Amino acid sequence: MNIAVTDAGADARLPLKSFLDRCHAEIAGEHSGAVANYIPELAKADPKHFGISLATIDGHVYEAGDSAVPFTIQSISKAFVFSLALEIFGADRVYQAIGVEPSGDAFNSIRLLPDNRPFNAMVNAGAITCSGLIHQAEGRGAFERILETLGRFAGRKLCVDEAVFESESATGDRNRAIAYLLRNHGVVKGDVDEVLEVYFRQCSILVTARDLAVMAATLANRGLNPVTSEKVISSYAVARTLSVMTSAGMYDYAGEWIYRVGIPAKSGVGGGILAAIPSQLGLGTYSPLLDEHGNSTRGIKTCEALSSHFELHVLNRSGDVRGCIVADYDIGGISSRRSRLPHEQEILDAHQKHNRVFELGGALTFETAEYLSRRLADVKAPCKFVTLDFRRVPSMTRAASSLLKDAVAELTGGGNTVILCGSERVAKTGALEAFENGKIPNVRSFPTLSDAIEWMEDQVIYRYGGFQNLNRSLDIDAQPLFAGLNAAELQELRKLMREANFPTGAQILKAGDAAKSVLFLKSGMVSVKLPNGTRLATLSAGMSVGEMAFLDQPRSADVWADSAVSCYELPVDAWRKFRDEHPAVAEKIARSFSALLAKRLVAANAKIEALTSH
Amino acid sequence: MNIAVTDAGADARLPLKSFLDRCHAEIAGEHSGAVANYIPELAKADPKHFGISLATIDGHVYEAGDSAVPFTIQSISKAFVFSLALEIFGADRVYQAIGVEPSGDAFNSIRLLPDNRPFNAMVNAGAITCSGLIHQAEGRGAFERILETLGRFAGRKLCVDEAVFESESATGDRNRAIAYLLRNHGVVKGDVDEVLEVYFRQCSILVTARDLAVMAATLANRGLNPVTSEKVISSYAVARTLSVMTSAGMYDYAGEWIYRVGIPAKSGVGGGILAAIPSQLGLGTYSPLLDEHGNSTRGIKTCEALSSHFELHVLNRSGDVRGCIVADYDIGGISSRRSRLPHEQEILDAHQKHNRVFELGGALTFETAEYLSRRLADVKAPCKFVTLDFRRVPSMTRAASSLLKDAVAELTGGGNTVILCGSERVAKTGALEAFENGKIPNVRSFPTLSDAIEWMEDQVIYRYGGFQNLNRSLDIDAQPLFAGLNAAELQELRKLMREANFPTGAQILKAGDAAKSVLFLKSGMVSVKLPNGTRLATLSAGMSVGEMAFLDQPRSADVWADSAVSCYELPVDAWRKFRDEHPAVAEKIARSFSALLAKRLVAANAKIEALTSH
Repeated sequence: MNIAVTDAGADARLPLKSFLDRCHAEIAGEHSGAVANYIPELAKADPKHFGISLATIDGHVYEAGDSAVPFTIQSISKAFVFSLALEIFGADRVYQAIGVEPSGDAFNSIRLLPDNRPFNAMVNAGAITCSGLIHQAEGRGAFERILETLGRFAGRKLCVDEAVFESESATGDRNRAIAYLLRNHGVVKGDVDEVLEVYFRQCSILVTARDLAVMAATLANRGLNPVTSEKVISSYAVARTLSVMTSAGMYDYAGEWIYRVGIPAKSGVGGGILAAIPSQLGLGTYSPLLDEHGNSTRGIKTCEALSSHFELHVLNRSGDVRGCIVADYDIGGISSRRSRLPHEQEILDAHQKHNRVFELGGALTFETAEYLSRRLADVKAPCKFVTLDFRRVPSMTRAASSLLKDAVAELTGGGNTVILCGSERVAKTGALEAFENGKIPNVRSFPTLSDAIEWMEDQVIYRYGGFQNLNRSLDIDAQPLFAGLNAAELQELRKLMREANFPTGAQILKAGDAAKSVLFLKSGMVSVKLPNGTRLATLSAGMSVGEMAFLDQPRSADVWADSAVSCYELPVDAWRKFRDEHPAVAEKIARSFSALLAKRLVAANAKIEALTSH
Repeated sequence: MNIAVTDAGADARLPLKSFLDRCHAEIAGEHSGAVANYIPELAKADPKHFGISLATIDGHVYEAGDSAVPFTIQSISKAFVFSLALEIFGADRVYQAIGVEPSGDAFNSIRLLPDNRPFNAMVNAGAITCSGLIHQAEGRGAFERILETLGRFAGRKLCVDEAVFESESATGDRNRAIAYLLRNHGVVKGDVDEVLEVYFRQCSILVTARDLAVMAATLANRGLNPVTSEKVISSYAVARTLSVMTSAGMYDYAGEWIYRVGIPAKSGVGGGILAAIPSQLGLGTYSPLLDEHGNSTRGIKTCEALSSHFELHVLNRSGDVRGCIVADYDIGGISSRRSRLPHEQEILDAHQKHNRVFELGGALTFETAEYLSRRLADVKAPCKFVTLDFRRVPSMTRAASSLLKDAVAELTGGGNTVILCGSERVAKTGALEAFENGKIPNVRSFPTLSDAIEWMEDQVIYRYGGFQNLNRSLDIDAQPLFAGLNAAELQELRKLMREANFPTGAQILKAGDAAKSVLFLKSGMVSVKLPNGTRLATLSAGMSVGEMAFLDQPRSADVWADSAVSCYELPVDAWRKFRDEHPAVAEKIARSFSALLAKRLVAANAKIEALTSH
């Protein structure tokens, strides 16, 4: 009956699975309570059955005991039909028909609020009113709509226990009385028999403890089923449903329940309990032995044990906002993957405080975004460019988006440019809508952090006059590797080289190939990339490519021409010969090469420090 | 009156401050409601006063409007005296005296539960019972204890409005009736006049909206005052207090409140409202205009506006568990700061899958630890060593600790060694108690990730026979920098060198000094450290120290002798002369140096990839 195959072997190693198994073994010894007997069909339940299931908000489902035994959902359906009514009619229209206060009475009370509305949607009167609302919207298709919705919550197609339905219908006179009273007050409209058929049928839907866990996890996950990834219902309807479950979900045990267990829950006389902890997990239990309130005895004990052992009370949360900033640095010592000429690097070194980077991590929520907004407000002159790196941000709430938008507007209003990078995932959720299409001036977006830093660097170099020779063609005397060589030595070297030209888009070097030459760029620009497309560096005129050939190592990356490229090529064979003949010159070049590598190593270590220090 | 000076200029730039100001300006235009008039002193309140304050759980306090105007706390005191009673007597004893169900009646109802207990601690009968409990415990010191406790919640010494107290006491006959009825049932014990004096005095304590915000933030922060960092009350008492506030804190508006606002709150007829969102923030408002339920009209509107704009409903949370693992890698390409000899490095390269590192981030809670436990259960052979890096984990709940302990025991039971590093901060909270003092075999602890990785590497090298020459003394022919040199060349070099010896603990090199020599270790071990003490590398016999002298750069770090050290020292002056005389040998050495740097650069880049990819 399960929709996903659980790898029992792998699960057995998990601490939570062990805990659930121990919990199950211990509570299975509890035999108090009695099977519901108000309709003959329910009295047939096996009192030995006991199942527990727990679903996480990333879709892992734990199971213990009889978690695959089907039973009728009964009153637990009320929560989902209420959420469906909220989704179809909106909260205001539903509130006109049904209150949100606990009644203090039994679930089947016929007492109504002074204005003749039912107290809330978790008592029979309110639930029948909900079924009536769906019937108003869907007519004879009402029950199908409900069955299909509950199936989307559970992640599988559900069906009805016809025997229980017949039994409910045959013995449902008290509910008939309630329904007629509601129609008398104009709260229920339409054919009472049809509305009651919907209601009796929804109570007779068959579910398992596993189904309840997934349904609960869907509520805990703001309406997105974590197993099927389907958005079943709006977070707006979810919060309201959980609210009413909190104040009235456990019959007349609600105050005690929030005090002792502290988890929004709903129980049914079929023996099920469903409990949902927002942003954490969904829980489903099944055991048909009920206490005097009509709640499953073992189910209550399971919820109490879990809540107490793992401190799951929704009002007992801890958090720390500072973790949302993984790293915060200016570009001193950190550089983009674009290699710079010495005079460009000097400009960058002199103005490193102009460029600031905040690498963010974790879900951005109200509290973390508020903290971030304070850190951004601390950004001071001479800073001109602020990069926000979203690569490690899986999601952002609307509240966080609103705070961040204002914080960014404050920065740009103060003369800063803000650069967003790695934000595709968050943007997909619509959380960055406020930033799109130039809605805030001076906000730019780049796919990777390296692209963003490179762009910031370009801006600084440009502002301080570094880009005077954009279309230059440079001879080998401009190469840092040949620094300190005299004209005669350079002339000797030039003799060994041949000129090579590549059109835009051409592949110049290929990872894995034997390194037969080192290239010295005369004009144009190239990108060094991993075979998977990740860009390692961008190089331009005056720089070298493939210098690892000096170390007799094969090509470690691909090199592509970003523009038309002209270069000098030094074959390794010729170089070896030259090296033997001119060891003093070769030694100078090797030393320059070491200096280049040492500088890159210093930058890489600074980056590691920035990423790992807190 | 404020305890901390707010930098108004800096705050003005914050988006949340702007929002609160806008909110304040808008809601200040609302004039409905009336000032409480049941006692003459309260009727003197200025209906124009309106203050808002919001405190975050990292201790930042926002204020808008009349947030520093004092007023009497009234019924809001009930929540704090209840929490104090829970702290002193424990939940069971308090439950024997006071229930936890909403009453459905007005706050001053004289009706009790069938067993003669008050319905809950938020109605007068329950609150007087609480005051009676404190009186039982403290006698005549009861009020001082309460005043001092509320002061710790607020982060400053509070005082009483004597005029309001006299007025409360003079007009308190209904409360006298309640108190005597409670003593009749044995619920209140002791002198009724003394108990009522405590109760009337606690209601007359003067607070500001800012005080309420900090008090609420202390509740939101599990009992730790985020401004003073003082632990005021246990998280156990906090969760229970928030529960009763949720079901009964807003008089007979509780169901609507949780449905519409969804934040545990308590209001007082003095005009204050206190609202606490666990793990997020505390809110305090003051405006003496009350609605028909006795709640501050503007205060309710402020809470509604904040809850709706920022989606603060406690049951409408989103989260993502995956962010708790910042990086997950084996040590292929990543290495510790201990330089290895070539044959050691070969062993490490061949067994890189033996060592796995999980770098964790953010607060570890039930849901993130559960996710982590599944990732740890996925660790497969040949892995033998698993490092958990806690540097970026600010806190861990008891539930997370429990799950993690089991997951670690599962790993060690399967033959793995688990290494914890950077865990001092978390350990201080007691969250790692289960791991201490060998409670789980095969768990080790190191201060830094580099130490942990070095230890893992040592274990692998040892297991695969790499440590046969631990006490060796190595000549310069073992130096990687001199690879490829023949005996005659080595002999020439040796002539330039002098032997140098250092005792354990001696400083060998000093950052900033001119680099006058390169050292080649013959025996012993040295550490390369930044002046702040951060260790960059550990080097042993066969390795070189201070090679940057080849590049004519000053010493970049300190070098200390970890043991007695013997080395060959190559003076830079002599090296320069040798270089000019033997350029071919010098070129070979420079090339080896480049190869060494290139290898370190590859490792550093791999580390950056591991830290930034997800």
